[in-house]
Amino acid sequence: MINFQTSPDQYKHWKLNVAGPVATLTMDVQEDVTLGEGYKLKLNSYDLGVDIELADAIQRLRFEHPQIRVVVITSLKPRIFCAGANIYMLGTSSHTFKINFCKFTNETRCAIEDDSHHSGRRYLAALNGTASGGGYELAIACDEIYLVDDGNSAVSLPEVPLLGVLPGTGGLTRLVDKRKVRRDRADVFSTLAEGLKGKRAKEWGLIDDYFATSKFQESIDARVSEVAGSTSDNEPAAGIKLNPLQKELKPAGVEYKYVNLVLNREQRYADLTMRGPDSNLPTSPDDFQQLGDSYWPLQAYRELDDALLHLRVNEAEIGLVCIRTEGNAADVLAVDKTIEANKDHWLVREILLYMARVLRRLDLTAKSFFAIVEPGSCFAGNLLELLLASDRSYMLNNPDAAESSIQVSTLNAGALPLSNGLSRLQSRFLADPEKVDKILAHAGPLDAEAADEAGLMTFVPDELDWEDEIRVAIEERTSLSPDALTGMEASLRFAGPETMDTKIYGRLTAWQNWIFQRPNAVGPEGALTNYGKPTQAHFDFKRT
Amino acid sequence: MINFQTSPDQYKHWKLNVAGPVATLTMDVQEDVTLGEGYKLKLNSYDLGVDIELADAIQRLRFEHPQIRVVVITSLKPRIFCAGANIYMLGTSSHTFKINFCKFTNETRCAIEDDSHHSGRRYLAALNGTASGGGYELAIACDEIYLVDDGNSAVSLPEVPLLGVLPGTGGLTRLVDKRKVRRDRADVFSTLAEGLKGKRAKEWGLIDDYFATSKFQESIDARVSEVAGSTSDNEPAAGIKLNPLQKELKPAGVEYKYVNLVLNREQRYADLTMRGPDSNLPTSPDDFQQLGDSYWPLQAYRELDDALLHLRVNEAEIGLVCIRTEGNAADVLAVDKTIEANKDHWLVREILLYMARVLRRLDLTAKSFFAIVEPGSCFAGNLLELLLASDRSYMLNNPDAAESSIQVSTLNAGALPLSNGLSRLQSRFLADPEKVDKILAHAGPLDAEAADEAGLMTFVPDELDWEDEIRVAIEERTSLSPDALTGMEASLRFAGPETMDTKIYGRLTAWQNWIFQRPNAVGPEGALTNYGKPTQAHFDFKRT
Repeated sequence: MINFQTSPDQYKHWKLNVAGPVATLTMDVQEDVTLGEGYKLKLNSYDLGVDIELADAIQRLRFEHPQIRVVVITSLKPRIFCAGANIYMLGTSSHTFKINFCKFTNETRCAIEDDSHHSGRRYLAALNGTASGGGYELAIACDEIYLVDDGNSAVSLPEVPLLGVLPGTGGLTRLVDKRKVRRDRADVFSTLAEGLKGKRAKEWGLIDDYFATSKFQESIDARVSEVAGSTSDNEPAAGIKLNPLQKELKPAGVEYKYVNLVLNREQRYADLTMRGPDSNLPTSPDDFQQLGDSYWPLQAYRELDDALLHLRVNEAEIGLVCIRTEGNAADVLAVDKTIEANKDHWLVREILLYMARVLRRLDLTAKSFFAIVEPGSCFAGNLLELLLASDRSYMLNNPDAAESSIQVSTLNAGALPLSNGLSRLQSRFLADPEKVDKILAHAGPLDAEAADEAGLMTFVPDELDWEDEIRVAIEERTSLSPDALTGMEASLRFAGPETMDTKIYGRLTAWQNWIFQRPNAVGPEGALTNYGKPTQAHFDFKRT
Repeated sequence: MINFQTSPDQYKHWKLNVAGPVATLTMDVQEDVTLGEGYKLKLNSYDLGVDIELADAIQRLRFEHPQIRVVVITSLKPRIFCAGANIYMLGTSSHTFKINFCKFTNETRCAIEDDSHHSGRRYLAALNGTASGGGYELAIACDEIYLVDDGNSAVSLPEVPLLGVLPGTGGLTRLVDKRKVRRDRADVFSTLAEGLKGKRAKEWGLIDDYFATSKFQESIDARVSEVAGSTSDNEPAAGIKLNPLQKELKPAGVEYKYVNLVLNREQRYADLTMRGPDSNLPTSPDDFQQLGDSYWPLQAYRELDDALLHLRVNEAEIGLVCIRTEGNAADVLAVDKTIEANKDHWLVREILLYMARVLRRLDLTAKSFFAIVEPGSCFAGNLLELLLASDRSYMLNNPDAAESSIQVSTLNAGALPLSNGLSRLQSRFLADPEKVDKILAHAGPLDAEAADEAGLMTFVPDELDWEDEIRVAIEERTSLSPDALTGMEASLRFAGPETMDTKIYGRLTAWQNWIFQRPNAVGPEGALTNYGKPTQAHFDFKRT
């Protein structure tokens, strides 16, 4: 079972050093410390275990070290920055694992850009040696890229020419959409196994600058000082500690404090219940900063994040997740009110951005989600986003049960956007944008009929039909082709505009998925299969 | 060999009837007249042969019947509009053929929307019976959808529940992005094999209205009159005739009047040369309307279109197309000037829109394109778009040869857009939009160095290097994995904004490609393989 929880004292592959406003994240992959068997992580190549540490480090910077303004990502290995995802690991992994691995590494890189964009931390990739494949894709997720000019070091995307697959972590999209490299140059670069060195790489926009070996460290230091000096230093000197999540692994699920995951493996669906907060949580930042990571929105969403990752990677056959909530809507709304009132406070900002990232993790999870609204639930405010993120919503239509209701808060108005930049309400009502305003203006709870009328429910069966309808819906959903559902959900969840993120997760990921199972890549004569072997790849040259 | 040329007198499956401003396109598929073997086209299901006729009919409406303001698409079969792509045809086709089939049918549906959007013809789908799968996808490409209410007829997308694949012709994207159906309802509809009938279908936005059987024809007629009456009738009563293309099929290529295609099958690349126009073509619409389909831009682009389709479907192993031009740049620019000066004339508008569609067909072709600029070429104005559409451009740097030059015209400023709505110059210079204005402002030819300086050339080798460099570039390109190249090109060609078209060709097509080769669809136990057989599909339920 793959565990996504770690902390700096457990890191095997990264060193996180914090000095004033500058953090340095240094990659020094231990080649024998692998998540799987049968490969060595040479030349700072990585597997999922390495990326789990990176994701953790970026997350911790935001919560534990808010004073950081510049993050330098570099390597301890001589003449090599990072050789990308380990090819032997990819070659021996299942299709499902490869796809989940790429998705998580994509989310980590998007989290870097989310931090840069929303929290103003500037990421500098200090390439002290060659950055190839995923190594360059890590660099291109940073704001600035500097390469050593030692006559040898290069940046490259050798996946197409060497492996017959695509750069799997957003590289192609970021080349033309983020760095806006001319498409013909991007074409040449992406087919050139050896990549490009300093001068040409700068001229083509692949890096921001290059420095001779003897000047490299001082040039990086100078740029770091410049960037650090130009940013505001309003951020506090101390953050809050992210403690290990307390979770109980059970034969059929995982129990956290606020999240309960029950796996019905025989029927291939899971029940995921999220519990609302206690009453009377503190409303001033100083007070909930005291609570630290036990403050409900942070702890509950950390637990949800962990549960989603667990479902993706460790429970591949679970095809459907039924999402429920338990608790008091008023308490959820009280939290939302506190967040709204203090959203300029650094910790509130980070919590809100994190909640948004976790909800996007849900949007991007290749499982079906049904929201189930029953008496005692609290789909209000931020928890209503779980319902809006679901593929369908079912609400018991029980006129006697006043407690069965849903309710909006200001956080539903855009604070927790989809990857395409829209709020989930906007995305739901593209045909009728006024409905969004009407729903947001509605004070107080909506019962099943009102929620249905407002367009928030897919079905509102009455008590007589409820159990049968839910049972049949689950049975039907889990009987369908899991592949067709993945493609269908990826197409229906993201109507409206597209962004670099949705391009990476939609267009690029879909092509990568396709190529990752083509015989030309993974067949006995495929390029990925034969990489590093005495045998040669042989292609079926039909163009598709 | 599949032939894309047809005409109404040859149609087997469609009837095109024209009466005043109304055209009726009636589907009446002859089940035994199939393009391939081993299947019958029952229930108005279609194969590529049926769609080639539809594409031809829509094209002819625009050129031969410009007076048409309303196009009604309906069926002659009782109680069935169209059952979509033939499943047995799909089940027995190669992966490559399936993908090319879907791409062509997508282009046909986008051509309907292009006609509606730019030329104002209104398309009405008169569903006199059930429209399932591709049948509903044809309807949703129309502006308005009307369904008979006979207690039985429904609209449906049964691909996911019945076949374990996606609706392959844009259906999912158009559901949420064109008709803006709520995503949870789109989810239910796309998993419901039997689909939805009149009342619920209208309520969910899947159709515009439904009429009882006894009122169906009169209701359609009434709506047709209403629409026809509300449109302008400035269009002329008579168009021009699209005659059969004259082409000579050779063992290694196809020779047209203005296009020459030479296949180097051993080396897996083609040379495609487009010849410029003669001098002194007429400049007034009345005169070139006299020329009809022999007017250079129309004939040359019709030939290019046919050559591209031939390459896609009949020459799958050709991985690279080297594009050259031959002729006089001044003559090309003279045509562009005539087009620019008369762009409000119906025929000029249709020619320009068609040129844009052909160029988009090139953008969407899964082959590499290298533009090769040598002395005697005429990459000017509209033909410069061929270079801008190419993955790379090579220009001989020969200072003595004044005739080796390229040149812009006003048509490069947006009249021939990519699927994403940008001009190819805009798309090329996303990093530096001012370059677009600077290039467009440049009067006169650009030699190799000037073109390189302007950012229009990938490489400008001198005479000493030219032959070797081109030869090596071809050899390298054709040695790479064809699948990886397809995914790479699809990612690099469409930087910038996304539209419904790019979503259909990028996101949806990529997912479809993936699913079309998953064992859950096409393996021995896959749903597509086992459809209609006594055996059952069995899925590997791992979610990916």
